[in-house]
Formats: sequence, C-alpha cells, structure tokens
Amino acid sequence: MNILKYPSREEWQQVCTRPHIDNSSLRQTVLNVLEAIRQEGDKAVRRYEKEFDKVDLSDLQVSDAELTESDSLVSEELKASLRLAHQNISKFHASQVFEPKRIETCDGVTCWQKSVPIEKVGLYIPGGTAPLFSTVLMLATPARIAGCDEIVLCTPPNREGKVNPAILQAAKIAGVSKIFKIGGVQAIGAMAYGTESVPKVYKIFGPGNQFVVCAKQIVSVSDVSIDMPAGPSEVEVVADESANAAFVAADLLSQAEHGVDSQVLLVTTSESLIEKVLDEISLQLSVLPRKDIASRSLENSHIVLLHNMDEVMALTNEYAPEHLILAIRDAEEVAEQVRNAGSVFIGHYSCESAGDYASGTNHTLPTNGYAKSYSGVCLDSFMKRITFQRLTAEGIMTIGPAVMEMAHNEQLDAHCNAMAVRFKDVKDKK
Amino acid sequence: MNILKYPSREEWQQVCTRPHIDNSSLRQTVLNVLEAIRQEGDKAVRRYEKEFDKVDLSDLQVSDAELTESDSLVSEELKASLRLAHQNISKFHASQVFEPKRIETCDGVTCWQKSVPIEKVGLYIPGGTAPLFSTVLMLATPARIAGCDEIVLCTPPNREGKVNPAILQAAKIAGVSKIFKIGGVQAIGAMAYGTESVPKVYKIFGPGNQFVVCAKQIVSVSDVSIDMPAGPSEVEVVADESANAAFVAADLLSQAEHGVDSQVLLVTTSESLIEKVLDEISLQLSVLPRKDIASRSLENSHIVLLHNMDEVMALTNEYAPEHLILAIRDAEEVAEQVRNAGSVFIGHYSCESAGDYASGTNHTLPTNGYAKSYSGVCLDSFMKRITFQRLTAEGIMTIGPAVMEMAHNEQLDAHCNAMAVRFKDVKDKK
Repeated sequence: MNILKYPSREEWQQVCTRPHIDNSSLRQTVLNVLEAIRQEGDKAVRRYEKEFDKVDLSDLQVSDAELTESDSLVSEELKASLRLAHQNISKFHASQVFEPKRIETCDGVTCWQKSVPIEKVGLYIPGGTAPLFSTVLMLATPARIAGCDEIVLCTPPNREGKVNPAILQAAKIAGVSKIFKIGGVQAIGAMAYGTESVPKVYKIFGPGNQFVVCAKQIVSVSDVSIDMPAGPSEVEVVADESANAAFVAADLLSQAEHGVDSQVLLVTTSESLIEKVLDEISLQLSVLPRKDIASRSLENSHIVLLHNMDEVMALTNEYAPEHLILAIRDAEEVAEQVRNAGSVFIGHYSCESAGDYASGTNHTLPTNGYAKSYSGVCLDSFMKRITFQRLTAEGIMTIGPAVMEMAHNEQLDAHCNAMAVRFKDVKDKK
Repeated sequence: MNILKYPSREEWQQVCTRPHIDNSSLRQTVLNVLEAIRQEGDKAVRRYEKEFDKVDLSDLQVSDAELTESDSLVSEELKASLRLAHQNISKFHASQVFEPKRIETCDGVTCWQKSVPIEKVGLYIPGGTAPLFSTVLMLATPARIAGCDEIVLCTPPNREGKVNPAILQAAKIAGVSKIFKIGGVQAIGAMAYGTESVPKVYKIFGPGNQFVVCAKQIVSVSDVSIDMPAGPSEVEVVADESANAAFVAADLLSQAEHGVDSQVLLVTTSESLIEKVLDEISLQLSVLPRKDIASRSLENSHIVLLHNMDEVMALTNEYAPEHLILAIRDAEEVAEQVRNAGSVFIGHYSCESAGDYASGTNHTLPTNGYAKSYSGVCLDSFMKRITFQRLTAEGIMTIGPAVMEMAHNEQLDAHCNAMAVRFKDVKDKK
C-alpha cells in the first residue's frame, strides 16, 4: 500500500482520482448484440447463450421443477441465513414507505405527491465463480415491498444449463416473478426490448462486467431507465488510535478481495496504527483463498495520515466513498459531517460485511465518486412519484393572473388562454 | 386531428407509440465540442459562443451590475407574478423534506437514511424566441430548499451578449449562485468538467434541443448525473360529457403551441364532445400567435373515443403521459387509478398552465413514456440519501453467524473474516 503522510491538498487529488473507465471500445460490439436481440428476440438470445455461455438452451425460463429442486440443494444453515437477511432488508426498506402530504399552496390550490410502484422491473445477477445471491435479496426484496407487478431476473446459466441453487433460493424467498437463464448483453437487451419469453421491463437493476455496464448505458438512453452507473467497489476506513488493527485490516481485505480494480483506502490520524494494520494485513492475507486478487488490489491502494478529524472528513467528502467505515471514538458525532458517501458504518463493530449481507441496508451503492449525486438503491428506486393538483374556482382567482402574466411573457399565449377561459368562467358565474 | 372511435387493443399501440428519437448522427459533433471544452476550458467556450451564438464575450459570468439593471427592465406585474410562483413552488417543495427514521432491524443492529444536498448543481436554460424564466424558478427553488451550496446557471446570451432580464430576475428570486452566458453543448461541457470560470457541478438539470440532450447523455455516462431523458412535451386530456369543450380545446392548444413535435391526446367517453372540441379548437386557433406551430402539431395528434372510464385509464397508463388532465366527473376518484403519469390535473379548473407556472408543482417532468419509471423533478432530485448503520456487540451476535454463512457461500472469505474477528472479540469479552 502506498503511504502518504500529511499530504498537501494538491496531493489529495491523487487519492481521490478514480481510474478512468472507458468502455467506448466495446460500444460497437454491444450495439450489435442489442440490435440482434431487438430484431430477433429469443432466437438471438439462444444464439448468444451458445456463443458466450457455451450452453444450448431449450427453455430460457427456470422451471418450477428447478426451483423446487433447489430446496434440497441448499443447506438449512444457508437457507436460515437468507431468511434472516431477507427479514432485516424487508424491515429497513418497508420503513422507507413515503407518506404523502397534501399542501394548500394558495387558497384553492392543493398539491400533493404520490409514490407509485414501477410496474415491471428487471434484475441482472452476474455469473462467474461466486453466486451473488445476496444481490438477489438486495434488489428483489425492495421491489416486492414497492409493489412492482413483475420482477424479472436474468442470470447466466452454467454449461449444464443450470442456475446456482442459492440464487434460486434467494429469488424464491424475495419473491421474484420470473427467472431467466440469460447472461451478459443479451440479458440487458431481452429485458429492455422484451422477447417472446422475456417481458419488457421499465427499469433495469444490478451489477455486471464492462459489457453489461455498457449495455445498460445504451438502453438507458431511449428505452428503459437503470439504477445507476457502475464502477469498481470501494471502501474507505477512517480510523483513530482507538481502532482495532485486526478489524481494520479485515475490512480493507474484504474490499480488496472483490477484484484487482477494487479501491481500498485507510485514512487515519494515528501514525502508530499504520504499522499495526500493515502487520495484520500480512497475517490475514496469507490464509485468504483470494489472496492473489487482494494483494494486487492493495498495491494500488492508499494509506493517508492526516492531522485531525476535520481534515479526515474533508478528504472523505472529496473522495465520496461507496462504503465508509468510521472506526473511531465518537463515530456517531463525526458521521454528522458526512456529505458524500454511499453507506456509512459507525463504530468498531459495524463492519461493511454486515451491510453487504444482513443488517438491512442495501448493498447496491454509488461507486467512482457518484456518491456526490446518487443515492444507493432503496425503496424509492422501485417507485416513482406522481404529482397531483386540484384548483377550485377560488384557486383560479388566486393564481390565475400570475399564470397569465408569466405565460404571456414567455410568448406562450395558448398557455395564457387555457387559464383565461377558466378565469372568465369563474368571473361570469360570480 | 386523427379520430379513433372505439379502437381495438392492437390499435392502442398506434396511439401510445412515440416518435423514435435518434440523435446518434449528432453524437460525433457533440463529442468533439465536449472534448474541446474539457481540454481548453474557457477558451473553447468563447470560441463556440462566437460560432453558435454569434457573440464575442469578454466576461462569461453575468455581473452584479447586469443583475441590478434587470430590476428596472422587468415590469412590476411580472416581478409580482414571479414572486407568487416562487412562494408556491417553495411551499410545495419544502413540504417534501425527508424525515429520517431509525430502525432496529435486529437486536443491536440500527439502520437509518439521511437526505443530504448535492453540493453543486448546474441548471441549463435554453435560449430561443421565448425566455423560459419559469424553468429557472422550477429548478433553482428546490435546489435552494435542498441546501445545495452552489447553484450554477448557464443560458445562451443574445447577439449583444445579454441575458433576458426576466431570466435574471427569476434567478435572483430563486437564489442562483452564479449565472453564465453560455449555451448549448458548450454549457453542458463547462458544467460537467469545470473551466477557469465555471465550477464543475455534480448534477445537471434542464431542457434543451437535441444537441443539449445528446451532450447531457454523454456526460452522464462517466462525469456527472442528469435529471432525466428529455423528449417532446405531451398532454393527455381525459374528458367525459361533463367537460367544458372550450377548456379542453384550450388545454390541447396550450400543449400544441410548444413545438411541431408536441404530443396532444384527447381521450373521451363522450362522442358528442368531440365535435364541440374540434369547433372550439378552430375558433381559438385562429387568433393564436403560434397558430402555425399548433396546427402542425395537431395534425399528428389523436382523439380517441372509448366505452368507459376503465378503458380510458387502461389506455392512459399504457401511454404514460407527461401531463394528464382529468376533465371529468369524480376526477379525484379516477385519479386513484393513475399508475403512469408525470403530473395529474384534477377537475375542470385544473389546467396544465397552472402547474406550468404557479401552483407549486414542478413542470420538469418525464416525457416519451418515461413516466413509467421516472419521477418529475422534486426536492429529492437535488439531494441523495446516505444510509447509516451501527452494530453493537449484541448486533454482532445476532447477525454475525448469518453474515459469515452467506459470505462463505459467496466464496468471499475476507468478507466472512471481517465479521469473524469481531464475533470472536465479542465472545472473548463475555
């Protein structure tokens, strides 16, 4: 790890700058696959599944028999854990239900918002070595609480045409409507445009590789909406002399094992902690199955020593980490100063993996500095707000003249007239 | 207008399909301008202002003297109207303030959300024949209530290098921090990347032509976030036999005058109303200054006659209009059935222009069917939610085993270990 002691403000930039992600070289490939899915539907999906996932699928949809079969393929311990996680995620997201307020802005003018579920949503769960069943819970649970009618899930099958049983169990527990054995760009295309088998959805969620990210960006321009831009996962641990070096090292490693491009940052006010953490990292790293990935990720990571907590929080807000662990005394007080972060873990016992799996918060969060303007996935991500208004005759008299004056000055006389015909009507009836 | 009487469900598609907007032919031009702004900053901004807005600017920023000068260039009537509109917009958006709840999801595990302002936002206000000062109020007012530190506004100057005084007055009333005389793609680039004069912002709002829309899409992929995709403005009027034909005609025309690509739709259960509305349209159209635009827009518009209100609402939810006017008996009851719409106007006196200017609701709304997944601009658009969590020793015991089980099954052993070191610590201390 690269150690920066008391860097100047100019050097902060080095810490805060993320690797520039440029997927423009993939763009044409992705466009071609998407266009084929749009034109040919299931036929093209099957062709790409054969090409990319090396599997010849007859049915694209996971059958009820396969779902039932997964019951016996997953241990009771894991099933109980999934249920506990689901319960906590449910509780926290259910608490986010929007309570509308009616506001009389002027006499006779009443306005309100209502939160309404997005009818059809699509969830993408990547394949690869590790089955990300936790992400199934994180996306499908709030979708179900929001009241989405149709929750479609796409995930690549293995070469035997099977989906990991833990993913199926998580989908069952969280209430996914339909599961399809489709991966990559073809999955994004199928959900964005609809095919004979896959319903067209209105919003697509979930992580993926650069091809999937690029496909989501392309379909979001004119077909559907998406959750947020995606980049490599990140953690920043803020620690003072009260921190437990073994905990801090474990937290840094848990991020570093995600991938070689993971971003790991330790910011501390305690010089003596740095050596202790480095020692603990060596110790813990040696026994990790994914130690190669973790060591490569750590090579590009920073430890920053700063004078005081004000400086620490200034750097933190500039960096805008996806995950922020506050392993410090008075953590809750300092948390008040957080302006840019995805999810904040307060105090020595609040590790990121708690929130990654089972505390109840969502783990789909803004990376790459996007925490400056994006929220993580929450109940609202699966709903939209519709505004309503009602004017009475009194309302026409109260705001009518202002509306007509403004419309006329914007040279939109038909807008002015729509109010004028009502204004006249109300006056005539008086 | 194209009249469809009792169309089959298949024919609904014809009504619901929007014109496909393809700005890919502009993409390279837009990319070139953006790249120049990124590389050269103000110098490139000035060059494009000369090329596109035909003006040679010394200062890009509107001066205090110009702001003061605008006081005397805007009538007292318009200033009073702007203040009333601002007051109502403030009241409605202030009522949207999020109230966080702390939830104990499990013993010893507490989670909450907090809404935090986006520090720097950029507003784009197009130029052209009509000065869209109402949009200044609609964007800057909630930005100020949210607590954004910096609210930057870009708008193209005229050939004398001046900004319309009504735009300056609206900006002053709503509390814009800095106003720049920059239009088009160069404005989007300046706010996305920052220049010597223009601060880099984290989110860009506001309407614009196809070049501006394309520029917003491009910068949203890796630099900033944006409000929403933009398409031609739309209104759907739902009317029954209780509707006032003059009101309905005025509402349709007020949308039609926006541009030749505006979408206007009348859906009714009353056959006799159709003739009356068409007569009223002829009458009102003849005296409109923008009658040429309005007539061309009406040529591509539909009147749909349906059997009953259930059918009407099914079509409405399929169409997902930006603006929906319910000019019917029992309008508030029917409004309960709205699932997809940007903003809903309930009853005969609730005209769209009320919400366009002064009722308090926002007029920046999802078009092109995006009301199926997007909200209009609201207070939340200028804020993001950060999640927080705190685990106690008890929390570690409650969810620790589930976290470790799930992490291990996802083959993320460092994630498992981050919980395991804490679990051991708590057990050892018992």
